[in-house]
Amino acid sequence: MNKPTIAISIGDLNGIGIEIALRSHEKIKKYCKPLYCVNRVMLNKAAKLLELEIPEDFKLYEIKGEFDIKPGKVSKKSGRYSYDSFMEAINLANDKKVNAIVTLPINKESWSKAKIKYKGHTEVLRDYFGKNAIMMLGCKKLFVSLYTEHIPLKQVAKSIDEESLSSFLIDFYKSVKVKKIGVLALNPHASDNGVLGDEEVEIFKAIKNANSSLNKEIFKGPLVPDTAFSKASRSNFRYFVAMYHDQGLAPLKALYFDQSVNISLNLPIVRTSVDHGTAFDIAYEKNRAINCKSYKNAIKEAVNLQENRV
Amino acid sequence: MNKPTIAISIGDLNGIGIEIALRSHEKIKKYCKPLYCVNRVMLNKAAKLLELEIPEDFKLYEIKGEFDIKPGKVSKKSGRYSYDSFMEAINLANDKKVNAIVTLPINKESWSKAKIKYKGHTEVLRDYFGKNAIMMLGCKKLFVSLYTEHIPLKQVAKSIDEESLSSFLIDFYKSVKVKKIGVLALNPHASDNGVLGDEEVEIFKAIKNANSSLNKEIFKGPLVPDTAFSKASRSNFRYFVAMYHDQGLAPLKALYFDQSVNISLNLPIVRTSVDHGTAFDIAYEKNRAINCKSYKNAIKEAVNLQENRV
Repeated sequence: MNKPTIAISIGDLNGIGIEIALRSHEKIKKYCKPLYCVNRVMLNKAAKLLELEIPEDFKLYEIKGEFDIKPGKVSKKSGRYSYDSFMEAINLANDKKVNAIVTLPINKESWSKAKIKYKGHTEVLRDYFGKNAIMMLGCKKLFVSLYTEHIPLKQVAKSIDEESLSSFLIDFYKSVKVKKIGVLALNPHASDNGVLGDEEVEIFKAIKNANSSLNKEIFKGPLVPDTAFSKASRSNFRYFVAMYHDQGLAPLKALYFDQSVNISLNLPIVRTSVDHGTAFDIAYEKNRAINCKSYKNAIKEAVNLQENRV
Repeated sequence: MNKPTIAISIGDLNGIGIEIALRSHEKIKKYCKPLYCVNRVMLNKAAKLLELEIPEDFKLYEIKGEFDIKPGKVSKKSGRYSYDSFMEAINLANDKKVNAIVTLPINKESWSKAKIKYKGHTEVLRDYFGKNAIMMLGCKKLFVSLYTEHIPLKQVAKSIDEESLSSFLIDFYKSVKVKKIGVLALNPHASDNGVLGDEEVEIFKAIKNANSSLNKEIFKGPLVPDTAFSKASRSNFRYFVAMYHDQGLAPLKALYFDQSVNISLNLPIVRTSVDHGTAFDIAYEKNRAINCKSYKNAIKEAVNLQENRV
């Protein structure tokens, strides 16, 4: 079986991304052919600082640029470099030169210092492809997609309407193609039949629309939010749609924080990411453990997703 | 050491409460002297249906009333009886004849059929004592108190104001007296410095007020809600204040659903409860497992809480 080629955008070189990449290379090459979007000079600088050997088969797609690595520092140059690495990874995937991309963490402040107009990866992807990327987080045992993302809690209720939720559900199903997906209610106790809010009516209709448009009973709900993630309920559902950020991510991170990955769905390319930041506080430190689970899972998930597309 | 006496309100006799009480008696009497608020006739009927022996030292505080037990049925008579059992348990505690009360589950529809004007236990307690009971759920490893409870999600943001949150925090501290309590933010990423909402300003001020009024740095926050319940964060905090129902209860139930108990704080009496309902679907069934963990933990927690009051 041919292993897929995966472009790795190197993230902020002042952070922990490059260490994770170097330390995980032997493991991840079992699943894919990684192509690291970083140049030889910068890689050597990082490896020297980390006192790590560079594996011989550490294949590079060289991204121009040179600067001094300053562990844990917000930096214009490092911000710009991480952006360029990401853009080239996208181009490679868009030109079908790689099968998927996996992104290491960038620093938002560094992007802002470098006058990059986006707040993060997902925004870039939405703009690049002109498509509404769906954000899904999780690990093998539990995946949660977010209907609304980075908005104030008080704006969530009015964002829920039958039409846009119906399209979201259909797009989501087409991206994951699983048999059963739990859709969370918005209100406590799923509103207790309207006593505690009325948005469940819209959610109920959207579920009905989506199922009837797909001609399959894929979506179930609206589920009572506080029990939806109990062990019993999770034995019934592995995929959930949350109405808002913390509704889905707080239970997910309570259960599987260090293993989770972030997946962009509903795009022409496959992109996954680690579910943590640059960890500036521990970057380039010696003699401390570093958790590479999220990165390895991001690679595995990218491999799975691109296989399903073939 | 003298064991405390705990009044057990028997809950809805058409549900699983009485079976839990009978099956757990040997265990719980290690911690307390239970006083069961049910009469001999009704107890005999239930035990016969369940084919269970009544332990010899199963001490009763007899509550008037007789009716046929109908497993799993909503019933006016059973609703009335469970209410009377609860009211007598409260009276016993209020008269200092018992040290605490533990409540077995009632059925809200049965209460409504019996024309009882309250929706549940907590409402009765608020009215009886004219005090604002604080609802806290959890188990030894994790406790979550709720600043807002059964209200629609869209009303949560406007319920957050410095003054009432400050009093809530102070009342909560006085009830639990622990050294460190995490207070959750309202918005995703705790608003990212105001980009995603502004309620964190009120929460921050309330934390400051409460700490300065207590003259101790008890409360920390506002904590980013989606990572607050991660393993690392839970090693730092065991007690949390959630701004709304599902924010606290979804992570709690994801982690510890079957062990959690419900505790009413800020009242003149100690009251704990199981964290599940009447389970009408499995009441009086034979040959199936029944989980008594929540009840046993409710007993243990009642014992702890009344000890702390002495």
